[in-house]
Amino acid sequence: MNKQNLITPRKLQGFWELMPKQQMLFSGLLNKIEEVFKANCFLPLDTPILEYSEALLAKSGGETDKQVFRFTKGETDMCMRYDLTVPLARFVSMHKNELTFPFKRFQIGKVYRGERPQKGRFRELYQCDADIIGHETLSEVADAECINLFEKCFDALGLDVKILVSNRKILAGFIEELGFENKSTEIFIVLDKLAKIPVEEALCELKEIGLSETGSQQLIKLTKTNGTFKEVKDSISKLSQNETFVLGLEELEKTSNYLKLFGNKSVVYDLSIIRGHNYYTGTVFEGFLKNSEYTGAVGGGGRFENLCSYFSETKMPGVGMSVGITRLFDVLLAENYFDLSKANEIDCAVVTFDETFNAGLELMSKLRQNGIKAESFYENKTFKSQMKEANRRQVKYVLIVGEDEVKSGNYTLKNMNSGEQISLDFNQVVKQLKDDRMASLMPNN
Amino acid sequence: MNKQNLITPRKLQGFWELMPKQQMLFSGLLNKIEEVFKANCFLPLDTPILEYSEALLAKSGGETDKQVFRFTKGETDMCMRYDLTVPLARFVSMHKNELTFPFKRFQIGKVYRGERPQKGRFRELYQCDADIIGHETLSEVADAECINLFEKCFDALGLDVKILVSNRKILAGFIEELGFENKSTEIFIVLDKLAKIPVEEALCELKEIGLSETGSQQLIKLTKTNGTFKEVKDSISKLSQNETFVLGLEELEKTSNYLKLFGNKSVVYDLSIIRGHNYYTGTVFEGFLKNSEYTGAVGGGGRFENLCSYFSETKMPGVGMSVGITRLFDVLLAENYFDLSKANEIDCAVVTFDETFNAGLELMSKLRQNGIKAESFYENKTFKSQMKEANRRQVKYVLIVGEDEVKSGNYTLKNMNSGEQISLDFNQVVKQLKDDRMASLMPNN
Repeated sequence: MNKQNLITPRKLQGFWELMPKQQMLFSGLLNKIEEVFKANCFLPLDTPILEYSEALLAKSGGETDKQVFRFTKGETDMCMRYDLTVPLARFVSMHKNELTFPFKRFQIGKVYRGERPQKGRFRELYQCDADIIGHETLSEVADAECINLFEKCFDALGLDVKILVSNRKILAGFIEELGFENKSTEIFIVLDKLAKIPVEEALCELKEIGLSETGSQQLIKLTKTNGTFKEVKDSISKLSQNETFVLGLEELEKTSNYLKLFGNKSVVYDLSIIRGHNYYTGTVFEGFLKNSEYTGAVGGGGRFENLCSYFSETKMPGVGMSVGITRLFDVLLAENYFDLSKANEIDCAVVTFDETFNAGLELMSKLRQNGIKAESFYENKTFKSQMKEANRRQVKYVLIVGEDEVKSGNYTLKNMNSGEQISLDFNQVVKQLKDDRMASLMPNN
Repeated sequence: MNKQNLITPRKLQGFWELMPKQQMLFSGLLNKIEEVFKANCFLPLDTPILEYSEALLAKSGGETDKQVFRFTKGETDMCMRYDLTVPLARFVSMHKNELTFPFKRFQIGKVYRGERPQKGRFRELYQCDADIIGHETLSEVADAECINLFEKCFDALGLDVKILVSNRKILAGFIEELGFENKSTEIFIVLDKLAKIPVEEALCELKEIGLSETGSQQLIKLTKTNGTFKEVKDSISKLSQNETFVLGLEELEKTSNYLKLFGNKSVVYDLSIIRGHNYYTGTVFEGFLKNSEYTGAVGGGGRFENLCSYFSETKMPGVGMSVGITRLFDVLLAENYFDLSKANEIDCAVVTFDETFNAGLELMSKLRQNGIKAESFYENKTFKSQMKEANRRQVKYVLIVGEDEVKSGNYTLKNMNSGEQISLDFNQVVKQLKDDRMASLMPNN
């Protein structure tokens, strides 16, 4: 190929791609979250990345949505999924007679947003979702399970999280009481912005919707309620006798009682939590990192009245949680949470001389069979260049295999950080490297 | 939503989607393969599913390829990846100054084929790829590593595989010797079909290309050579002095010697292996299941002269392997390889009475904290309906939590298969369930 015919290798803008050592860490986080999901009896699901546009855009009446990657192939109009919830609804509707309910499923996968690439916005991102879908009814135990699961995910990642929990029926009931239930979507949009805009602006917007000054003030005050469940209840229970309001408080109380049984420690009740999406109808929650400068939510979830309303007449209420792992990882990288120098695909490099090259490969192979990630820098002919390569790759241990070592079966294991060298037989080498790996997994290392 | 507005939930044809219990098994296979890749010091890579069409179709000069999902969004012409190799080439070319070579990476991900849906053909499928990319040169150790890795993947899955290995230079050299090097692509296409078409038809096609009857017969005879490396060498080494032929045999010998050091046990040398793709230039291999009625290859790989030729002037030879895991799983399912009744997301169901409902949830939560996948069928109010649900879900163990049990701290663990019941305290329950899980992982269970 001539130089002038070469194509400049480029990655699509806004699409996420990590360098391999970062990817090692990221995959590690995904694996930990997957383990949490499995340990809590969630079943895996892996829906296709493409869906019929008709199904994926059912909510918007099938209209083209600029935020979606949509195209046709032959006669087929299809979209790349923009979340994992609509495919779940499609799957559950298709298989509702084969599944057992409550159906607990998790899915870790990429989703696609056709928006303009910009800093902090990804067009391809991972979501880690877990949902519990009921048949006709679903106990508040499920709400507590999802919040508990969310906390466990962050526990598994070693991150301190604060989880703010509310129930949208409380605000919805109060809005009903004010006589604005037919404007509740618009009102929720304003309330959801309260953390970002001055209160005067919010008041102004609520006035435009038609609320009185007093009503708006009461509503905004209500969203500022937070504390333990008891504090929240004591503070608001006398505010309204509206049925929805009372039901919301009751649901929140049940959820809070089940959370106590599960031993949750990171939950604060906070009525400011709206959680955008208007399909949430009950429990809503969001998680925030405690020891981070990043103030946005790193995930959350909530209860929806009927997951499958676009596909089926059967009522299937659900509650779910999602960890925004792409954003979270981006934050952790930016805040130097990881020590990349310790992320190594190699436990030990086997370094040889000309006459021990084959013996070294054999040893490498045996080490791997014994669970040690051993590597031979077989392209480097000299001892010196192999040692240099081990240094360059920040490999912690080097196993030196000379002729004497092959004869005696005792090898020289060198710790490249301390410079220390010890002579060990094969089994001792394996034990030393495994012990060291265990030690490096300890939190203080 | 009115019934008439409901959308029929459909999955795109040819897109693979497993039911959750099957997905548990499939994910288990992927995890095992991932572990093998990591244990052999391969780094993970996770490239985007979308690429610039220019990059993805570089090989075909950027022409539209019907087999590819291609579309434009705004000004951007993009494609869904159809394999994991071209994205690897793009990545390596972009980052060649940051990576260390040989660069060993694995990627497990979905690829997309825009072909017409039909039985046994998937439009979305998983590939499990591992490749070793060199800088300017790459030792035959890498070829042996990839073949060895391929065998280890099948070992990890508990499947007996036969790996047929060849080196394309042997046939290419012989074709050169016959004076048809400028027709080698067409000739390879015919030779690749030999297992599927009558020899007369192949001879006829070779004649059309221009080969003499004798030449064709010799060539076909050559492809029928197989056995240990020594047998192959003894049988063909005197056939030709052509440089490419001799080099091919030398490379195969080196690869075979390294494979011996690695202790490979499933390799047979077989010159009939061509492995389709014309970018393979040296080592080629394919794997076949030993105890299966499926006779097609379940994966393979080979050596390519220059991975990045479309993107970079730097020569980067590579060798790789790929497990066709979607096809493989399909075969294993069809041949009832798995006992789906044993695939359960639940170790133990906690069954309660009205008055012990909360105590049961607390116990469930504690069991999970202790690594037991415990579940409560909290939607089922009566003891009887909970037991029925446990049966329906084929849960092996049920932990019965009555008032006496809560008081004494001794619970009744019932084995639903044998009907046996024993009274155990919390720690004994945990131990019993863990021991049982270990036992069920043993090969004879």
